[in-house]
Amino acid sequence: MATIDVPEQVSVLADAEALRKACKGWGTDEKAIISVLGHRNAVQRKQIRLAYEDLYQEDLIKRLESELSGDFEKAVYRWILDPADRDAVLANVAIKKLSPDHHVIVEISCTRSPEELLAVRRAYQARYKHSLEEDVAAHTKGDTRKLLVSLVSAFRYDGEEINTRVANSEAKILHEAVKDKEFNHEEIIRILSTRSKMQLMATFNRYRDDHGTTITKNLEGDSGDEFLKTLRATIRCLNDPKKYFEKVLRNSIRRVGTDEDALTRVIVTRAEKDLKDIKELYYKRNSVSLDQAVAKDTSGDYKALLLTLLGKED
Amino acid sequence: MATIDVPEQVSVLADAEALRKACKGWGTDEKAIISVLGHRNAVQRKQIRLAYEDLYQEDLIKRLESELSGDFEKAVYRWILDPADRDAVLANVAIKKLSPDHHVIVEISCTRSPEELLAVRRAYQARYKHSLEEDVAAHTKGDTRKLLVSLVSAFRYDGEEINTRVANSEAKILHEAVKDKEFNHEEIIRILSTRSKMQLMATFNRYRDDHGTTITKNLEGDSGDEFLKTLRATIRCLNDPKKYFEKVLRNSIRRVGTDEDALTRVIVTRAEKDLKDIKELYYKRNSVSLDQAVAKDTSGDYKALLLTLLGKED
Repeated sequence: MATIDVPEQVSVLADAEALRKACKGWGTDEKAIISVLGHRNAVQRKQIRLAYEDLYQEDLIKRLESELSGDFEKAVYRWILDPADRDAVLANVAIKKLSPDHHVIVEISCTRSPEELLAVRRAYQARYKHSLEEDVAAHTKGDTRKLLVSLVSAFRYDGEEINTRVANSEAKILHEAVKDKEFNHEEIIRILSTRSKMQLMATFNRYRDDHGTTITKNLEGDSGDEFLKTLRATIRCLNDPKKYFEKVLRNSIRRVGTDEDALTRVIVTRAEKDLKDIKELYYKRNSVSLDQAVAKDTSGDYKALLLTLLGKED
Repeated sequence: MATIDVPEQVSVLADAEALRKACKGWGTDEKAIISVLGHRNAVQRKQIRLAYEDLYQEDLIKRLESELSGDFEKAVYRWILDPADRDAVLANVAIKKLSPDHHVIVEISCTRSPEELLAVRRAYQARYKHSLEEDVAAHTKGDTRKLLVSLVSAFRYDGEEINTRVANSEAKILHEAVKDKEFNHEEIIRILSTRSKMQLMATFNRYRDDHGTTITKNLEGDSGDEFLKTLRATIRCLNDPKKYFEKVLRNSIRRVGTDEDALTRVIVTRAEKDLKDIKELYYKRNSVSLDQAVAKDTSGDYKALLLTLLGKED
């Protein structure tokens, strides 16, 4: 379930006017920006952008970028975009880094639905005049490239039909490869990148039933091995995305110096989806609420926006 | 340009009635079937199927399958389907063969537009409850699998922006790999499966300018090497699909015993697209018209349908 709190009646025109007022003159009224945008869903935010452009002949996103700064600006920018377009931006930023953020690519390709991933690929092309897989392939190499390109190119079957025979035989194939430490085996990549998520869950369950341990446990090892880390993230995103997101939040907060990029990314991308469930998992795992943890680790307008998206009452 | 000849005024109801009449009672009126379906475009054929189902509570396709037989039945069945659904069927038949028809997979993934290929992937899932790439991966192996899975999963950028610098450097990468006979080099597969068709044309042109010969010429060699054959087909489909189709037609007719599957496939899939251009190429290359060649090699209702689709006046 979502965390954001959207009023029943929304006037897009009044919102556009309120944002204009917040940006005009000396100084910016960040609180006003949060109180509007932090309580609007993706469709409404898009309508507000269109209304704003109509009324004032200027691009709301560009205006906000020029008014705001730092983590707050980044979070507002990510939040205001259409979800598919936002994922395209996140993917592009991750790819273009000097050492690409493989787990962001994995996250986008494995936790979104097949149709959502397709929308991201469309949005990516519209923005960057390249295909997503083209840019991933051009900026990665070796086994990691094979895995990532297959994952972003997948258009998985999204139905409920499962083949138990296939689950059995592929659990065996995975176990053989893992046992022999052939983590880059082409069968592992084939199975993870082409099978439906329901089918993969059946396969992972079968793996655990047959071998008494999960495949991710069997993949723990050299923490410096980038491919192995990417492979583990892939399986965790496919098998239990909410649990995966809880862990990303936990790590982003726990480390010395908060990882704002990861924190913002998960809150912004899940606030309209399943952040309520992720918050529950977080509380269970950490014995402290996510709201509290975020409040403690962040400050100012950035903190206020995150808490609003987390659904915390003012 | 298309070859089929569609009248300006079409009554979908009258068509459904005419088809019912052609199927009713003893014997079937194949000529009537051809004179209706052979002169209707994809949208009209779909409307006729819906109207027929409404009027007679039976599936027109199933009825035709039970009335017709042999190459004629196969051609009518292929023709009546929606283009994306037809490609899904063609791909599935090709994959499920004891020795899969790799060139059909290449043809579908490389001669259709990115959006058309996406529609095929959707249609495939709706029909077979698997993704296309999943079935291709499960029925092929080795380098051929790597190439085919990448090709069917591609959602290429379809715009006009070309990067000349990339064309230069990738023409060089391709030439190095081809020169060293490393035909399965992962860079070859990356370039062919992720770059846009416009970009690839620039790269192939650069290759020819730099080395005085086309890349396909440089790939000629061991005719028994299945991977190399598939690679050549890929480049030909991407670079000049009409020329590729002309050659498929030429080979299907020239060999001892016509290859009806290939002949039907090309005529049925291109009749509403570019079969007129392909006919011109055929005439230029063979000094005999495609209509004449088809008429000489086929017979009966099958011949009558193909010639109708080729736009030959009765």
